[in-house]
Amino acid sequence: MKVVIVGGGAGGISTASNLRKMDKNCEIVVLTRDDKVAYSPCAIPYVLSGTIKSFDDIVMRTPEDYKKKDIDIITEVEVTAVDSGKKTVTYESKSKSKTIKYDKLVLATGGNPFVPPMEGVDLEGVYQIRNIDDGIKVQEAIKDAKSAIVTGAGLIGIEIAFALMKQGLNVTLSEMMPQIVPRSLDKDMSDILVKYLEMEGINVVLGKPITKLIGDKKVEKACFDDEELIDADMVILATGVRAELDLARMAGCEIGRWAILVNDRMETSVEDIYAVGDCVESKDLILGFNTISQLGTTAVRESKTLARTICNKKSKFNPVLNSMVSKVGKLEFGAVGYTTSFAQQNRIRPVVQKVEALTRARYYPNAKPMDIKIICDGNGTIIGCQIIAEERVAERIDTMTLAITEGLTCFDLSNMEFAYAPPVSMVTDPLILAVEEVSKKFN
Amino acid sequence: MKVVIVGGGAGGISTASNLRKMDKNCEIVVLTRDDKVAYSPCAIPYVLSGTIKSFDDIVMRTPEDYKKKDIDIITEVEVTAVDSGKKTVTYESKSKSKTIKYDKLVLATGGNPFVPPMEGVDLEGVYQIRNIDDGIKVQEAIKDAKSAIVTGAGLIGIEIAFALMKQGLNVTLSEMMPQIVPRSLDKDMSDILVKYLEMEGINVVLGKPITKLIGDKKVEKACFDDEELIDADMVILATGVRAELDLARMAGCEIGRWAILVNDRMETSVEDIYAVGDCVESKDLILGFNTISQLGTTAVRESKTLARTICNKKSKFNPVLNSMVSKVGKLEFGAVGYTTSFAQQNRIRPVVQKVEALTRARYYPNAKPMDIKIICDGNGTIIGCQIIAEERVAERIDTMTLAITEGLTCFDLSNMEFAYAPPVSMVTDPLILAVEEVSKKFN
Repeated sequence: MKVVIVGGGAGGISTASNLRKMDKNCEIVVLTRDDKVAYSPCAIPYVLSGTIKSFDDIVMRTPEDYKKKDIDIITEVEVTAVDSGKKTVTYESKSKSKTIKYDKLVLATGGNPFVPPMEGVDLEGVYQIRNIDDGIKVQEAIKDAKSAIVTGAGLIGIEIAFALMKQGLNVTLSEMMPQIVPRSLDKDMSDILVKYLEMEGINVVLGKPITKLIGDKKVEKACFDDEELIDADMVILATGVRAELDLARMAGCEIGRWAILVNDRMETSVEDIYAVGDCVESKDLILGFNTISQLGTTAVRESKTLARTICNKKSKFNPVLNSMVSKVGKLEFGAVGYTTSFAQQNRIRPVVQKVEALTRARYYPNAKPMDIKIICDGNGTIIGCQIIAEERVAERIDTMTLAITEGLTCFDLSNMEFAYAPPVSMVTDPLILAVEEVSKKFN
Repeated sequence: MKVVIVGGGAGGISTASNLRKMDKNCEIVVLTRDDKVAYSPCAIPYVLSGTIKSFDDIVMRTPEDYKKKDIDIITEVEVTAVDSGKKTVTYESKSKSKTIKYDKLVLATGGNPFVPPMEGVDLEGVYQIRNIDDGIKVQEAIKDAKSAIVTGAGLIGIEIAFALMKQGLNVTLSEMMPQIVPRSLDKDMSDILVKYLEMEGINVVLGKPITKLIGDKKVEKACFDDEELIDADMVILATGVRAELDLARMAGCEIGRWAILVNDRMETSVEDIYAVGDCVESKDLILGFNTISQLGTTAVRESKTLARTICNKKSKFNPVLNSMVSKVGKLEFGAVGYTTSFAQQNRIRPVVQKVEALTRARYYPNAKPMDIKIICDGNGTIIGCQIIAEERVAERIDTMTLAITEGLTCFDLSNMEFAYAPPVSMVTDPLILAVEEVSKKFN
């Protein structure tokens, strides 16, 4: 069996590795545009900030390492055609073109950065961050820059803005929406983050799109809402990615609203073609509709399911909640499930409570505030949670992910047992305080 | 309605507070031996270590604070009699004796430190740590001491040993069993802790009971197993507590193997008498038998249930898993559910896996080792988890508590979604790595 994988990101490489663990004999070929594989793009902002010393540190394995596992990674090639009838893939390197057969084809084509409609976006000094090469370019550009604008205040945007601030630039973080992290946080929670970013010296501009980038060859200023001008020696577009669908379309795979449609075994509508990662749609766990989950963890988890599918083992990819966490400077923030407004948009009348607790016993040194927001549906079933604190956020998000997955109500969870010691939590855990408070709204 | 509560620890005081929140009118009287209430005994080791500055810091509220909430706390009295027929309680202060009526009586009598059978236990310089006054005595004694032995290597014993070491004493931690934390950790996990304690300079003596304390008036040496002698200017008995049952017996309450029997509404066998905290038995969540759960969190949670019961509201105390966490020096350790040997003693054939993971992405600064052990029953249902690392242990224990409570298998959990960012976890969470590994044993 010959498995050809298009894409060397988290989805593609993990599929190759998982497949090899389960099947020692199959032929595995990975085709990738990049010259590097097996690195964590999530780590790029932390290299830019100087927290991680070098881009070399975040590359875990080389193509040669994979060669030893009998995985053939062909780098710096562009796949130009798929023929799902003949079961072939054609790829082009610098000079030549080659067509190879496949028995199973995996599309892990990922996404392309979305470029928002704005004048001057082709000026020098405007960057997107897809891969390490982009990271290196930005790292170089930082040296000569005094000011930067990062547009798009999702996780990557915030992390990059923070990194550039750390490097001494005057940084503006801009977001078209009236709040940052709009997909995962309610406005009152995002305001806590904004306050922190501003305290750290980042200029946050909300609710105003950049309409124009101005400069002579190289960007110099950005124009917001056709009025306000802000200096920018560099501009970073962190406005999300759109699934890359050309090959999927060419192969005849059914495409959904945003990305390739796959079933819970990661099979596309075309026989022997599979897809994973940023280029596929997932099922939402709470209401069951299709959604996108462009997270490294999702890609890695999908690839485990897919490897089992290809090996004819029982496999099932569960619906997603898009649980996320990030850390900028001192502040860790995370979320899972629906925001209040997303719930409302989906005809749920959310019952919501925000509480302020502490990360340790009140009397224990360095106890820090922890803000927690719980979102329930009308029956008390938990459908969302958002947490911001200086420590111990991620794992609480995981606990809530499990609670939502299991369909628990706030009443159920308020009876839960939690581990306690003064240095690590409160005798009544912050999560319990929060679910107890929201429970009261149902009395 | 007049509610009389005997005991001013976590169970008694929390019952009073919760009751007052639900019922503004009932009369609430708390009778306690202590002169202080509403402090966290779990915090005493951290005051002794100097991490928390003073014992004053860990007292959250005074009897006067409770007076303002219309809760009458009568301190420094000994309850000497209960008459469940006449519904009266008799208590004695320094000079006088008084008998009062109750409509509802709450026994929150806690436990008494167990004194192991050893010669010389009445010598000066031998301490138990039940309350702040004991803590203050030990704090005083530290000043003149050069060496100390702490016997009993449960959480408190370890925390105290570490505190005395921090204060510059030569410390021996001794445990009769061949490992430390025998109730919650497997030997291989406890060995990691032993290694750390030894590295910090604590002498750990396992598998040998102290048979004799030697000294002229004041303790000078301890004799282990009738052979080895170790110097000790002070000896701390941290050998657990036994439920205080005198009043419960006097009232005619049914007593189980270790403590007062209560139903899931915290009612004893005697009408209008209730009990919470270290003096009651709980139900074990996994196999359903009676157990003891002498944890502050359990007492606090029971008191919430009891307040609802007394107010005639729906109430139910769930079975327990005895999830626990502690931190000594840099190392955080926690556990929930059964150890391997406890499972075996209960005719479960455990399927067990230990993995070593990291607390952050491999390339992220200060990524630390995390040791995780998962214990499943023969069907793959998770029944126990133990974790040791320098950070982020407690909340992972909570996630596993939820997983065990929900009856999840290792296969279920290996499909779970977890939040990821390089500064706070691995792309495949350590818990997932662990459940994936144990899952393989079922193939």
